Amino acid sequence: MQKRFTKINDSINAIDGLKCWGIKEGKNGLGIVKCEGKVSGVFTTNRIKAAPVLITAKHVRKGRFKGLVVNSGNANAFTGEKGIENAKRMAEILASKLSCKPDEIAVCSTGVIGRQLEMEWIESKIEEVFVKLENSRQAAKNFAKAITTTDRFLKEYAVEVDSAVIAGVAKGAGMIAPSMRSATMLAFLFTDANLDKTEMDELLADAVERSFNVATVDGDTSTNDTVLLVSTGKKKVGKELFGKALTEVCFQLAKMIVKDGEGATKVFEVQVRNAKDDRDAFKAAKAVANSLLVKTAIFGCDANWGRVIAALGYSGIELTENISLWFENGAEKVCLIDKGEPTGCEDEASEFLRENDDFKIIIDLHTGDGEGYAMGCDLTYDYVKLNAEYTT
Amino acid sequence: MQKRFTKINDSINAIDGLKCWGIKEGKNGLGIVKCEGKVSGVFTTNRIKAAPVLITAKHVRKGRFKGLVVNSGNANAFTGEKGIENAKRMAEILASKLSCKPDEIAVCSTGVIGRQLEMEWIESKIEEVFVKLENSRQAAKNFAKAITTTDRFLKEYAVEVDSAVIAGVAKGAGMIAPSMRSATMLAFLFTDANLDKTEMDELLADAVERSFNVATVDGDTSTNDTVLLVSTGKKKVGKELFGKALTEVCFQLAKMIVKDGEGATKVFEVQVRNAKDDRDAFKAAKAVANSLLVKTAIFGCDANWGRVIAALGYSGIELTENISLWFENGAEKVCLIDKGEPTGCEDEASEFLRENDDFKIIIDLHTGDGEGYAMGCDLTYDYVKLNAEYTT
Repeated sequence: MQKRFTKINDSINAIDGLKCWGIKEGKNGLGIVKCEGKVSGVFTTNRIKAAPVLITAKHVRKGRFKGLVVNSGNANAFTGEKGIENAKRMAEILASKLSCKPDEIAVCSTGVIGRQLEMEWIESKIEEVFVKLENSRQAAKNFAKAITTTDRFLKEYAVEVDSAVIAGVAKGAGMIAPSMRSATMLAFLFTDANLDKTEMDELLADAVERSFNVATVDGDTSTNDTVLLVSTGKKKVGKELFGKALTEVCFQLAKMIVKDGEGATKVFEVQVRNAKDDRDAFKAAKAVANSLLVKTAIFGCDANWGRVIAALGYSGIELTENISLWFENGAEKVCLIDKGEPTGCEDEASEFLRENDDFKIIIDLHTGDGEGYAMGCDLTYDYVKLNAEYTT
Repeated sequence: MQKRFTKINDSINAIDGLKCWGIKEGKNGLGIVKCEGKVSGVFTTNRIKAAPVLITAKHVRKGRFKGLVVNSGNANAFTGEKGIENAKRMAEILASKLSCKPDEIAVCSTGVIGRQLEMEWIESKIEEVFVKLENSRQAAKNFAKAITTTDRFLKEYAVEVDSAVIAGVAKGAGMIAPSMRSATMLAFLFTDANLDKTEMDELLADAVERSFNVATVDGDTSTNDTVLLVSTGKKKVGKELFGKALTEVCFQLAKMIVKDGEGATKVFEVQVRNAKDDRDAFKAAKAVANSLLVKTAIFGCDANWGRVIAALGYSGIELTENISLWFENGAEKVCLIDKGEPTGCEDEASEFLRENDDFKIIIDLHTGDGEGYAMGCDLTYDYVKLNAEYTT
């Protein structure tokens, strides 16, 4: 029988030896995690990389981790030499408190682009947070809260796998479309599993590909996106099983981020089946999940499947009109196109949309055996409101 | 001295021998143009092509044109064999009235995807419109109105070039982002200039590339997009001058379509200068013009230039932080970044945005001599409203 992993109602405090804390004051926040172990990271592919990304990527390559400091409210991006100095300074301050080297510290920032950090505030808050570091559920919650910007809810997820734990905390909202991704996504994963650095790098890259990257389009990342995996290395776990559990934690966090899409009221998964190959399936699923017309139709509970077809058409994949398309949740299924024939069930499907805020759009292309999926959310009035009024 | 072309306050009725008419009843419309000449066409690259696109592309390859029939309200797309039959039937009905071959007729449709045409209505309206065909300004307006869907205003533009005329009429709204392009764009250009079919094909492809295609992203076209150029061949014009004038007519029509972006209140041109090459400049300009965060910031009159920087960063081009960025209109200029240094003029720039609804965002990358531009409009509450409620 296959060994599995199970969700636990805990967060990063489930990691033995980890301590954390965070504070949030208006739009600004600061959080610290203290934890000793190995570290892997995946960073934004945006050509304009924020100062903390440049610094942390360098530190993570060395592989040793002692602590993490994150500020929200200011991205420290497009801030030139002074930005680099400030990011280094954040690492130095925490390193001196932890009596470790600065390159054992990770630094992350999220918020408005193009403004210098207020280092006095940062320094005083590191001081304030540091003395409160502890291992408790409340401490984990405070950290999760401290790193948020436009997030409407905290994003935490943890699983038990064998005797080990993987726990993650993330921030991010508004990955509504390719060009949306200026809203930074940060995710911090901690585990007590024993893995070597090469395994960690490989498993993290794979998990990110199957989770955060299906909630967006390749390469369209913000200046600050960062995912870190820290392992304290105390427990033994099989590599394959660990990889599956890690992917599950990342997937659930990514789904929370999509669900918290700015102004979103509905989250949906697009599954494409029987495409020419997996690559086509993936492209098709992303095109549908990112279509503004599909997103607004779903907000309006309008089963306008023509917009799905148009998105498939411009996705660039191989395609015939022999398409099947249906909506489903765990219990119910409404078919809109059956092997190229419209079923005329628009009313039933619109009813389904009114009743469900988390569902799947399944598309069968009947051309091969490729499979792929993507996640999306609806586009609403509140999305426009939030983004028209963000900095002012 | 260079010979130029001048805008005239006329429309397709300026073409000698051309007759047209159109009617609009609620969401449905039907328009006919009668005109004899050569024809070139550019069609959607969407893999799912509407029946009228398949039929008209075939007819246009033969190069002879006698008439055009367009219906709005139903796209006749994803309608299988019956859709093809209906598109053919539309051509046949008009051909029999014009005593010509069906392959001398162009057929276009725009509207909802996935529903069969109501051919009884189409037949009776062809009848009704045909008897009213005439050469007048009012007839041209009625045709322009008949082909609209969510358009808020008619799109007509004409120039005189030497002794010849180029006149265009278009429909389309809502090219707000890549995935937006399910809103069909139709443009019909008529001229009395004397050109051979090869020249027409070349000049039309070039003009479309520099106009309609800078208002969107390559390949993200609707199932029905069609641009036709018909030449009656009575007047002599130099090829180069004609090409410039044709591009101008297409550019102005494209700008009207962007200005009529669903719910849009502002239209802007993004000009990228001194990129590595033209291709990079074009990519960068499109990424900025299509960024939802840039669009919502402009709607909110918020000079949040960090979003422009983020879009440049994920556009995939070569880039340093040595960027200059300013807004300008004919009279005024507000600089936000000067060679990598933020100027701190956000308040002045926000004021500029409040006072201008048609302006340029200029980006100088200081890395080469590539130039490119794109057009965009803001993203508003009304965009969401229009698209959430379109079919219901």
